[in-house]
Amino acid sequence: MTYSKNQIRRYPIYLKLFKKMLSEGKVVVSSPVIAKELGYSEEQIRKDLQAVSDEPGRPKRGRDLAKLVMTLENFLGYRNSTNAVLIGCGHLGWALLNYPNFVGMGLSIVAVFENDESKIGASVCGKEVFDIKDIKTLLPEFKAAIAIICVPSEAAQEVADLAIESGAKGIWNFAPTHLNAHEGIAIEDVNLASSLAVLSHRLNQQKE
Amino acid sequence: MTYSKNQIRRYPIYLKLFKKMLSEGKVVVSSPVIAKELGYSEEQIRKDLQAVSDEPGRPKRGRDLAKLVMTLENFLGYRNSTNAVLIGCGHLGWALLNYPNFVGMGLSIVAVFENDESKIGASVCGKEVFDIKDIKTLLPEFKAAIAIICVPSEAAQEVADLAIESGAKGIWNFAPTHLNAHEGIAIEDVNLASSLAVLSHRLNQQKE
Repeated sequence: MTYSKNQIRRYPIYLKLFKKMLSEGKVVVSSPVIAKELGYSEEQIRKDLQAVSDEPGRPKRGRDLAKLVMTLENFLGYRNSTNAVLIGCGHLGWALLNYPNFVGMGLSIVAVFENDESKIGASVCGKEVFDIKDIKTLLPEFKAAIAIICVPSEAAQEVADLAIESGAKGIWNFAPTHLNAHEGIAIEDVNLASSLAVLSHRLNQQKE
Repeated sequence: MTYSKNQIRRYPIYLKLFKKMLSEGKVVVSSPVIAKELGYSEEQIRKDLQAVSDEPGRPKRGRDLAKLVMTLENFLGYRNSTNAVLIGCGHLGWALLNYPNFVGMGLSIVAVFENDESKIGASVCGKEVFDIKDIKTLLPEFKAAIAIICVPSEAAQEVADLAIESGAKGIWNFAPTHLNAHEGIAIEDVNLASSLAVLSHRLNQQKE
């Protein structure tokens, strides 16, 4: 089964909705209800859920919410834990360290790396801050598969290369720049400029 | 001309590259060079640039970098300024207020709204923090078209409704939840759970 990027992006949004409905005491959910809540087409919803679940939805009754939650949590890896290190503890890095939901998503940030000597050796949100120079020894010790990159864009490629050389298999890139890596490496960008461009474009369309 | 969301997301990434090349003293750029730098196909690059620029690229010589930068900055609205207010000054809100690049992208955060009385009346990064209760009077005074939502997900829909009632035309949503609004409102989500899901999925595919 192959999944499109946009499809995978929808699964955490379904999951959030289903957990909310469960907490409200609901037991089943149907595609029309999901369509109304999330604004996706019923056909898309059926395809998305069919792709992760063996169980067909029963047309009149809908799907079992608790089973859907379990299926999606498994699919998204929320029931496992992947270790990550965060590189660059500026404002954004600090905000991510304080983000309360990552553990529930199977992401465990185990250490922080910095090149700023005033930060090295300190502790941020309970994570020790290490010298970026030591990443080659430490990243394998931490069994970290993911490097979260929060450095300025000028430094991002260099830091990503270093993390990959140290054994990182995935890069979660918050620097507003494109990063290159060889094929076996997963790179996912959170590019605020791209997101703002989409919003601005829609705003301008409204004006026209 | 209609643009896909993914296409619009690519324009700031092109712009970043072209500005870097200009700063390195380069004058022209060709699709193969862009393809190598950004990993997009040459066909896609030609289509993307053709869609915003009247000028055809000359096959042997490439495109004029300075003109491309100007074209993209105009297309993305970086030469205008849109006022925004930020709602919810927690860790992430604070990081966004400290983000140095928004002004260069035509986004001007003019005020902050909070419901936490200990923060109201204070100043954060030079922006005054106002009581969310006063948003209906203040948002029109600030001529703010965009509300940046950084509140916890439970409060996000309520706060978005309030911003829209107060006159906001666009919602930049950083709360990890889906928001509903009527058709004339532009909503763009920065959903970290969706982004992490894409990264995790690719990491798992590597293991298989």
